[in-house]
Amino acid sequence: MVAVQKHSMQIITGRTHPALAEEVARVLGTAVTPVELKNFANGEIYCKLTESVRGDDVFIFQSHGGSINDAIMEQLAMIDAAKRASAHSITAVCPSLGYARQDRKAGGREPISARLIVDLLSAAGADRIMSVDLHSGQTQGFFNGPFDHIIAMPLLKKYVADSFAGSDLVIVSPDAGRAKSAERYSSALNCGMAIIHKHRSASKQNVAEAKYLIGDVKDKVCVIIDDMIDTAGTICSAADLLAEHGAKEVHGVTTHGIFSDPALVRIEESAFKTVAATNTLPIEATGKTEKVVTLSIAPLIASAIEAVYSGDSLSAIFDGQNQM
Amino acid sequence: MVAVQKHSMQIITGRTHPALAEEVARVLGTAVTPVELKNFANGEIYCKLTESVRGDDVFIFQSHGGSINDAIMEQLAMIDAAKRASAHSITAVCPSLGYARQDRKAGGREPISARLIVDLLSAAGADRIMSVDLHSGQTQGFFNGPFDHIIAMPLLKKYVADSFAGSDLVIVSPDAGRAKSAERYSSALNCGMAIIHKHRSASKQNVAEAKYLIGDVKDKVCVIIDDMIDTAGTICSAADLLAEHGAKEVHGVTTHGIFSDPALVRIEESAFKTVAATNTLPIEATGKTEKVVTLSIAPLIASAIEAVYSGDSLSAIFDGQNQM
Amino acid sequence: MVAVQKHSMQIITGRTHPALAEEVARVLGTAVTPVELKNFANGEIYCKLTESVRGDDVFIFQSHGGSINDAIMEQLAMIDAAKRASAHSITAVCPSLGYARQDRKAGGREPISARLIVDLLSAAGADRIMSVDLHSGQTQGFFNGPFDHIIAMPLLKKYVADSFAGSDLVIVSPDAGRAKSAERYSSALNCGMAIIHKHRSASKQNVAEAKYLIGDVKDKVCVIIDDMIDTAGTICSAADLLAEHGAKEVHGVTTHGIFSDPALVRIEESAFKTVAATNTLPIEATGKTEKVVTLSIAPLIASAIEAVYSGDSLSAIFDGQNQM
Amino acid sequence: MVAVQKHSMQIITGRTHPALAEEVARVLGTAVTPVELKNFANGEIYCKLTESVRGDDVFIFQSHGGSINDAIMEQLAMIDAAKRASAHSITAVCPSLGYARQDRKAGGREPISARLIVDLLSAAGADRIMSVDLHSGQTQGFFNGPFDHIIAMPLLKKYVADSFAGSDLVIVSPDAGRAKSAERYSSALNCGMAIIHKHRSASKQNVAEAKYLIGDVKDKVCVIIDDMIDTAGTICSAADLLAEHGAKEVHGVTTHGIFSDPALVRIEESAFKTVAATNTLPIEATGKTEKVVTLSIAPLIASAIEAVYSGDSLSAIFDGQNQM
Amino acid sequence: MVAVQKHSMQIITGRTHPALAEEVARVLGTAVTPVELKNFANGEIYCKLTESVRGDDVFIFQSHGGSINDAIMEQLAMIDAAKRASAHSITAVCPSLGYARQDRKAGGREPISARLIVDLLSAAGADRIMSVDLHSGQTQGFFNGPFDHIIAMPLLKKYVADSFAGSDLVIVSPDAGRAKSAERYSSALNCGMAIIHKHRSASKQNVAEAKYLIGDVKDKVCVIIDDMIDTAGTICSAADLLAEHGAKEVHGVTTHGIFSDPALVRIEESAFKTVAATNTLPIEATGKTEKVVTLSIAPLIASAIEAVYSGDSLSAIFDGQNQM
Amino acid sequence: MVAVQKHSMQIITGRTHPALAEEVARVLGTAVTPVELKNFANGEIYCKLTESVRGDDVFIFQSHGGSINDAIMEQLAMIDAAKRASAHSITAVCPSLGYARQDRKAGGREPISARLIVDLLSAAGADRIMSVDLHSGQTQGFFNGPFDHIIAMPLLKKYVADSFAGSDLVIVSPDAGRAKSAERYSSALNCGMAIIHKHRSASKQNVAEAKYLIGDVKDKVCVIIDDMIDTAGTICSAADLLAEHGAKEVHGVTTHGIFSDPALVRIEESAFKTVAATNTLPIEATGKTEKVVTLSIAPLIASAIEAVYSGDSLSAIFDGQNQM
Repeated sequence: MVAVQKHSMQIITGRTHPALAEEVARVLGTAVTPVELKNFANGEIYCKLTESVRGDDVFIFQSHGGSINDAIMEQLAMIDAAKRASAHSITAVCPSLGYARQDRKAGGREPISARLIVDLLSAAGADRIMSVDLHSGQTQGFFNGPFDHIIAMPLLKKYVADSFAGSDLVIVSPDAGRAKSAERYSSALNCGMAIIHKHRSASKQNVAEAKYLIGDVKDKVCVIIDDMIDTAGTICSAADLLAEHGAKEVHGVTTHGIFSDPALVRIEESAFKTVAATNTLPIEATGKTEKVVTLSIAPLIASAIEAVYSGDSLSAIFDGQNQM
Repeated sequence: MVAVQKHSMQIITGRTHPALAEEVARVLGTAVTPVELKNFANGEIYCKLTESVRGDDVFIFQSHGGSINDAIMEQLAMIDAAKRASAHSITAVCPSLGYARQDRKAGGREPISARLIVDLLSAAGADRIMSVDLHSGQTQGFFNGPFDHIIAMPLLKKYVADSFAGSDLVIVSPDAGRAKSAERYSSALNCGMAIIHKHRSASKQNVAEAKYLIGDVKDKVCVIIDDMIDTAGTICSAADLLAEHGAKEVHGVTTHGIFSDPALVRIEESAFKTVAATNTLPIEATGKTEKVVTLSIAPLIASAIEAVYSGDSLSAIFDGQNQM
Repeated sequence: MVAVQKHSMQIITGRTHPALAEEVARVLGTAVTPVELKNFANGEIYCKLTESVRGDDVFIFQSHGGSINDAIMEQLAMIDAAKRASAHSITAVCPSLGYARQDRKAGGREPISARLIVDLLSAAGADRIMSVDLHSGQTQGFFNGPFDHIIAMPLLKKYVADSFAGSDLVIVSPDAGRAKSAERYSSALNCGMAIIHKHRSASKQNVAEAKYLIGDVKDKVCVIIDDMIDTAGTICSAADLLAEHGAKEVHGVTTHGIFSDPALVRIEESAFKTVAATNTLPIEATGKTEKVVTLSIAPLIASAIEAVYSGDSLSAIFDGQNQM
Repeated sequence: MVAVQKHSMQIITGRTHPALAEEVARVLGTAVTPVELKNFANGEIYCKLTESVRGDDVFIFQSHGGSINDAIMEQLAMIDAAKRASAHSITAVCPSLGYARQDRKAGGREPISARLIVDLLSAAGADRIMSVDLHSGQTQGFFNGPFDHIIAMPLLKKYVADSFAGSDLVIVSPDAGRAKSAERYSSALNCGMAIIHKHRSASKQNVAEAKYLIGDVKDKVCVIIDDMIDTAGTICSAADLLAEHGAKEVHGVTTHGIFSDPALVRIEESAFKTVAATNTLPIEATGKTEKVVTLSIAPLIASAIEAVYSGDSLSAIFDGQNQM
Repeated sequence: MVAVQKHSMQIITGRTHPALAEEVARVLGTAVTPVELKNFANGEIYCKLTESVRGDDVFIFQSHGGSINDAIMEQLAMIDAAKRASAHSITAVCPSLGYARQDRKAGGREPISARLIVDLLSAAGADRIMSVDLHSGQTQGFFNGPFDHIIAMPLLKKYVADSFAGSDLVIVSPDAGRAKSAERYSSALNCGMAIIHKHRSASKQNVAEAKYLIGDVKDKVCVIIDDMIDTAGTICSAADLLAEHGAKEVHGVTTHGIFSDPALVRIEESAFKTVAATNTLPIEATGKTEKVVTLSIAPLIASAIEAVYSGDSLSAIFDGQNQM
Repeated sequence: MVAVQKHSMQIITGRTHPALAEEVARVLGTAVTPVELKNFANGEIYCKLTESVRGDDVFIFQSHGGSINDAIMEQLAMIDAAKRASAHSITAVCPSLGYARQDRKAGGREPISARLIVDLLSAAGADRIMSVDLHSGQTQGFFNGPFDHIIAMPLLKKYVADSFAGSDLVIVSPDAGRAKSAERYSSALNCGMAIIHKHRSASKQNVAEAKYLIGDVKDKVCVIIDDMIDTAGTICSAADLLAEHGAKEVHGVTTHGIFSDPALVRIEESAFKTVAATNTLPIEATGKTEKVVTLSIAPLIASAIEAVYSGDSLSAIFDGQNQM
């Protein structure tokens, strides 16, 4: 008996951010396969894939946001179910990867939680991981298999170029650690850059931390770029510092709009004129601030899935920029 | 250079049920090693072991209760930290193991979540697992290493024998699946047994489920035994059924008192006179019901840890009953 | 160079029960691929696949019966050969899985041999396991990959329904541990149930074990259901107990007819009128008893293989009952 | 709490060749720890370690002889039990390793069974393997950990030197594949060597295989050396060929006396004057032939275990010859 | 969405022996996919696959010759890149496998480097290994997956048969360890054989090593066969010994012509009339000796790759001789 | 038999930088255990541990410098040898870890070679890795076990503080990617900082790259800090740029002085007054430049090994700074 096996593509999503998976499915001309998901009384998650995935290429979406540990565990359970249900391949699609900031030991006896999350996905049965703008590119190396790293820079760069065409633009790094990233944007947009860095006076009794601006922002349109905005404390004080230094306008651009409380309040009250974020996480700013602009990451993810599924080059699609 | 290595014992606990770890440490004549644990604004857990564990035998406690997925993730992070901090051995002590009921596929395309949890503990770096009264003994086989399975039966049996000495006792299984367990108690206590089983009429339009009692309980003191009580729906209706059949008194005994809402209310309103549970999970019944009795599992866990640490036989301590 | 790879299906069988593999192949419209199998003088098994399996989906049959350790080792050798001969996928088809009863530690310092067997299959190179009516469903969780668990219940239920239509039927569990299973059949057949349980008097000098019947069987047609019948001691004494309690007829139904000596003699001499078993193991009752009825499991296995090979849903085929 | 862990040495044996383990234990001044071992009616092996092995260094003996697959499975079950009972380390002592001849693919689609056996020992939980005179030294490389390879050459060389002192000695390789080994003995004993090789005439209709002797044996005392003697067909015809070429005496020396039927009859009827074998396997020649001499391997194994347990050098003990 | 996945075949080569990969590609009717390969100033290798390999079957060639550790590391880097770039399967094609002679522990505390190399290929991500004439067949067993072992014997046998037709031929083993291989050739060519063996006199003060010839070579055409020729010291002294014993002509045949200095000089000055080697390694004899004849292994490798890619039998192609 | 096992500490070194291992051993009051290391004619490395390591804690040193791939392979062979010789634990001490810069995919279809090197160490048998100043801290996360990351900052900071006490100091980052590190030093030394960053004009025909200085260096003593100096091109042009901007003096400080050609010439010809480097790699500047100052890392490595061996806290020794 000889047959040619065919693998269907199936898109499955957890409960954290179904709208993104649905948008990606629409772009791909398909629909999300429903999954039964619920919590037992004690909080344990139950899942059941409602359709056969036997022999299929399954993409299991979960943005690691909301109640983040529940989100991760739910994705792990879906992966385990797909593995035991004989999926041909399982891709964990984590538009925003949880614990990505804990990617190294900042002190002794800490975990490397980003590696842990990657190991958990692998232990559950993920053959491949897909994520957007990792906090550090090295996180790709935490996985011992293909890790499709989508970068949002083409999207964000175009947004900045379109939005502030004609302005005297300066890209600002909100801290020393993001200087390299700011350098990339400033080169790509052919404009200036500035860096805000902090200085800890360790010699005195109390550790005093002061912020300094290096670079010229006077009368310029400043765009602060960061990979994620969580409580927005650092970035809002950076925006205010730029305003104090005479910036004409201050805008923020980020990939992951986590916006934990009181982020939206801080943004509303800060010197920011706008803050743009992609929808790797669900953003609900209505009623809190009008400053937040949402950009859809769905077309980029859809292209990546299409490439994975059909065996096309991802680098070709993203013009070689997908591994920065 | 030649030296004899010494391994200290260290007991560490997550935030779900620190009182139990502290009690175990007291029994062992030591103290819990503090850990820094907190949540970032977006819910990510951060942990840092505050003392060196290099070369030590570390027992990391977490009862999988409360916000159960947070509890599990917190334990995984502590294990990862201990592994990277060069612990000599890491024992995941899970007095109540999460997802233990999902130990097989009840339907197609479900996960086997109990295996998943065991795999996650292993992926994080646990060398050994210790737990109390697993929902099924087969779960031990999910781990590919030593899994110390403490059984609470000696404790519970003694409690029943002491409490109801002189009564005409019947052990009752609340459903067909626990009949084997009831048989064990009835043999050990040399008393009668009864079983409640349900019958689904699948031939009619609506699936009707009725409960039946097999065995004689008239004028007897009935003790329903179950490994865990979650929302208490099944067990309370069992108690009421026994009362309807003329039981003199109805008591409940369980190892894991999960008591998810509305368990305590139901117990209060049911035919139960008392419900005894061990403290594998924190129990806060005050103000809701006076019927709940708590039995301490700490001495049994302490003995098990002592055996693991000093290389003594666990079977000897538990009189060969620890693997039922 | 671009080509579409095709994977042939190949069915291979060890020497324990070739008739079953051949029957399955016939149902699938194909034939068993011959393998050279022999024992060296010292008992070592030699195997050689006689046809290329490069790139193929290979199903390697062995019922774990007869000289059971030889049977297992022979299957492992065939799996290793197929792996090294570049099979695309290898499914270990174990209609009756050896050591399935040793699925947990009943006492200290015992192995969990069912997990061991699963690990050996995995170590040899099996990508997938297929078996019928595992002693406990948790055994599926011993494998960290797809484990197709075929349940014989549809077959057995139909057999009982057809054979005893119109009778006043009672399903009997031969011991407390199988009560859940009896409950399933009794619900499905919409009839009564009874349980036989044993009681060990541990308080006296000698441990005395007595058997009790719970439930009413007087003048009824009793069908005792068990997953396997080995020496038939327990089940025959159960049959006799039912007869003593006034059962009209007593029948036995099982999935795995191991029938180790003196099972067939016991059945012949017992109160059983018939005992039905599937052919997951070869059954040779001729000359010993006329009471044994054999039901073919081949169509169910063939459907499962067809589903695996073509990527269809197994749940759909078995109407969602294949994971009980 | 700080303690120094102590690991006891425990010697455990399967049922194939308990006498050897007991002899080794005596040499080491200890005793074999009893294990409960039995077969269920269907042939499944049951084992239970009767004493605690928690934290101990356990040496689990099984010569892979007798009913060889039962022997292997029994050892695997004991290893699994020791692993789950928290042994500190587990050494699989296989004085004669089963399937050692199947160490490479002699043809397409064969297993490499020697690798498979090593993988099974590893999958069950063996941390280390100990064996005597592997059929090929490369088999050590099949294990990804320490593999103590004891060579019997010092014992056998001394036996030959003592037994045939003063004779005009020739070491004979019974086939081309053992020429290297014969060369080693001939160098060590400072005597001549000869080789018997076969020639297959492949050009004719029937493949005819003839044996030729290269080297001079006229009036000499010939000692044929081989690592194992199974049915003794090849080695006995080699002995006869030597006699035909005028050898004064012909003796055989081997490490592993498998002696499958009709080996002992053949030896009795052959030109062999004596055949010496070590007791890596139980040898029962009484009543069949008086020619077989047994040499005890126990002191060498005891020295190796002593070295493993106390951390001494094995090379030092065996004078650097233990890895040939 | 349902699609049939297609896997392209891609041939990639490191810098050690690109000519062989190109020749193989030509035979297959395709071309080598270019890779960017360079060394950084400190010697670190950098590689970048220039075309997408997503979903493709990639064959990564590297003969382990030249600067052998650089060669191995370069292949590992390419494998890692292909793995992370989502290749469907990765075959490490090592026409000459490095460290193949270190396949067992010749003394205590040595590595088994051949196993190490195989482990490194596996750790980097190779799914399959392909090599020609391994130093020992057991090396196949070092890999836990498909290892295509191409043997050059059909090519070499044909070369000898064609070149020396009508001569009175003798196949000579250059040492005792290769006697088995010489036996195979002598059987296949239906001619005589001889063996050169060495004798170490260990009883005297100085270890003296002398070489002896067993067998008759007078007036015959001798062909010494070895799997590899490194510095050619042993084989050239063997050739001279044959000449001293009256051989009419002496020729050499080998699979792997490593020809480390001063091999070519030695060959030129030896009694060899010709030495034939396949091109598993690049051979540059021009200007040093005219005696070396190169035979192309490319057609055999191409057939093997074709079989792997299309799922055909390798044994069929090589007439069952590919596993000797 | 009960004994207390003792593990000796053994320090072993490859041939790249034996002086460092010897210095570390001296600090620890022990000596390096000799290893036999040589290359065969074809470049293959041979190693043999000359003393027993059975049961010992072995630290295998190799700085990944010189002929870097040979260095790595030599370390892997020593690790494999120690593993097979039954070492209790194996620590790969890589003062300078090879391929550390290739820690992420800078473009599509590249390897992550730093992860690969870590995987190779693990595959060979390393239980633990020890290294100094990784190019990125995330590399620790590439290993799934304890990775002791020694940071040289206390040493380098003290050197700068001592050398330039009283000067008006500015710490300079040589590119945007090292800004965070410069910030740390500037905080610790309580002085100013500056950053050199490059700007790629992507909009023109030719990509032009220009360097800019952000921050004030006029009349100041500038110290450029980088983790490694390879060919010194970037850092020397940075030094010259600082001189152009009016720096009073320019000094360089680095951990890893790779100094590939023409680094020393460039340094000699640059604006640098001095360049300090630790001896993680052997530095031979004599005759090329007098500007290079060498600082010994041996005491820090010795403290780390002492901590690993005796089970002390590494964080305590390094004052919590060892994980930056």
